[in-house]
Amino acid sequence: MRDVADAAGVSTATVSMIINDKKGARIGADARRRVREAIDELGYRPNALAQTLVHGSSRFIGLVADAIATTPFAGQIIHGAQDEAWKHGFVLLVANTEGNEEAERDAISMMLEHKVRGILYSTWFHRAAEVPEALRETDFVLVNCFSNDGTGRAIVPDERQGGRTATELLLQQGHRRIAFINATTPAPARTGRLLGYREALAATGIAFDPALVFEAYPDQEGGYGAAEQLLGLGVTAVFCYNDRLAMGLYDALRQRGLAIPEDMAVVGFDNQEVIAAHLRPPLSTVALPHYELGAAGVRVLLGIDAAAPDAVIRLACPATPRESAGEGLADRRAS
Amino acid sequence: MRDVADAAGVSTATVSMIINDKKGARIGADARRRVREAIDELGYRPNALAQTLVHGSSRFIGLVADAIATTPFAGQIIHGAQDEAWKHGFVLLVANTEGNEEAERDAISMMLEHKVRGILYSTWFHRAAEVPEALRETDFVLVNCFSNDGTGRAIVPDERQGGRTATELLLQQGHRRIAFINATTPAPARTGRLLGYREALAATGIAFDPALVFEAYPDQEGGYGAAEQLLGLGVTAVFCYNDRLAMGLYDALRQRGLAIPEDMAVVGFDNQEVIAAHLRPPLSTVALPHYELGAAGVRVLLGIDAAAPDAVIRLACPATPRESAGEGLADRRAS
Repeated sequence: MRDVADAAGVSTATVSMIINDKKGARIGADARRRVREAIDELGYRPNALAQTLVHGSSRFIGLVADAIATTPFAGQIIHGAQDEAWKHGFVLLVANTEGNEEAERDAISMMLEHKVRGILYSTWFHRAAEVPEALRETDFVLVNCFSNDGTGRAIVPDERQGGRTATELLLQQGHRRIAFINATTPAPARTGRLLGYREALAATGIAFDPALVFEAYPDQEGGYGAAEQLLGLGVTAVFCYNDRLAMGLYDALRQRGLAIPEDMAVVGFDNQEVIAAHLRPPLSTVALPHYELGAAGVRVLLGIDAAAPDAVIRLACPATPRESAGEGLADRRAS
Repeated sequence: MRDVADAAGVSTATVSMIINDKKGARIGADARRRVREAIDELGYRPNALAQTLVHGSSRFIGLVADAIATTPFAGQIIHGAQDEAWKHGFVLLVANTEGNEEAERDAISMMLEHKVRGILYSTWFHRAAEVPEALRETDFVLVNCFSNDGTGRAIVPDERQGGRTATELLLQQGHRRIAFINATTPAPARTGRLLGYREALAATGIAFDPALVFEAYPDQEGGYGAAEQLLGLGVTAVFCYNDRLAMGLYDALRQRGLAIPEDMAVVGFDNQEVIAAHLRPPLSTVALPHYELGAAGVRVLLGIDAAAPDAVIRLACPATPRESAGEGLADRRAS
């Protein structure tokens, strides 16, 4: 700081006031400019920790994630949160708990000790979560989850709209008898996507037929095993709970010599990296807004987006149409 | 701190000395115990930032990652680095740059301002990297990359051993004419895996036939397109540069009515989450040691693992055998 002051021809007290952005300090524009130039030239790095003590709170935002390592979903939440945090001069402290309660306690303690501005508590799949007591010692926003007791602000994907959008991708291609393979595992996605499927049918004047909905474990093996039941339903199209399930179904359909989308149109959910765009044919699907969940979490935490104390904010799941829904099928049928 | 001191019946100076672990402070075991109990009871959280200023360096380790959002690979490096950092009382500051130079400069600046103990600089695929100048202001370890100019300590996967291991998975099943579909994209993995393939053949007394090696773009589409050339080679087995390539090849082989592994045994590389274990049949492959790369990076940074100033440390890529290599084929042929 001494060197900066000497180069700029001001006192160290002046440099300190400029760096710490002291309100009410009477410093001329010229001196400010000279100090900034000296800082650039000398490569001076202010001590962020000392600045934090001066300001009384840090420029950290904590992000607790339960499964960074095993899915790319957490990565996208982190990416969105970090971009948004940086935009506002904040740095993200990321802690990965892999669902371990002790690691979670340690992570939150560490963040509180670092005087974070607040904490984003995120889960890799959309679910109800028990909010750890320590979280309530600071501001927090739940990301991709919501609290069991209905307290706290939460940002989650709009599963119901997503289910509607997925079904519409098939309706738009002229399909009228559409199956839905739902998950066997309880989750907001399971109830929400089913509601959306029913809404889309109703909006098109198609009566809901419960025989066309059945369940499978939501991975490739589950999708592969679902083919037999699906083929007995006399449908021309199927909405799969997720892309992994659709990927397994692809294998089973091909094994029977059936073509996608000609013999069976398929729509997935998730727009999962490395899978959806690279299946043969590429999979029509609905994207989960992970990046946006992270970014919105930061905006709500910083008060940039308004949110009532216990608000649950739902973000749209956008359509990602590709060939498997049978693009042009409606046209071909009409001709 | 006042409350802790009152509850423990000691002075705030004593509490401060215990929290900051001051060397040479003469404090009785009984007083120490009372202070710790008071801290637990009152839920007192020491200010980590003030402690850092007292100690002169922080308990942070920085991790710069170039692509958190798009692959699960970065997630595993982070997971390994964090577990290891926590084990030694350090916290990981993660910054995601998505390959953007300005974001990278900002990330490193931020870390230096927070007085990190050092920085892990990581890339999502193994490659040469230009070490940013600012990195040299602190201790750093390159993770999954190495510097263009050969300076700095680096931890990378052993591509050569990995290629050897992949080829051995096929040799062990009795295959003798084995193709290698390499990547079109230059990378240490491309040269290393080819060397390993040649070494494995040589060790088994099989002459290297350059006609059995050709290249494809290392994704599903590349693998799909490689089938025609592969089938003209008269081989019984193929080692694919990565799992995505193998996934595309599966589609092309099935389309021609060929069974894996009966008509063509397949081995991949990466053991990529969501893909390898869930193909039909499950894909034999070699795992990239991402978790271990992150953990070893921390150990080298902290001096727990010794490493010469410009050492490049290679970690093993373990075999992950599954059905696609043709388990039991050798036995069936022998009988």
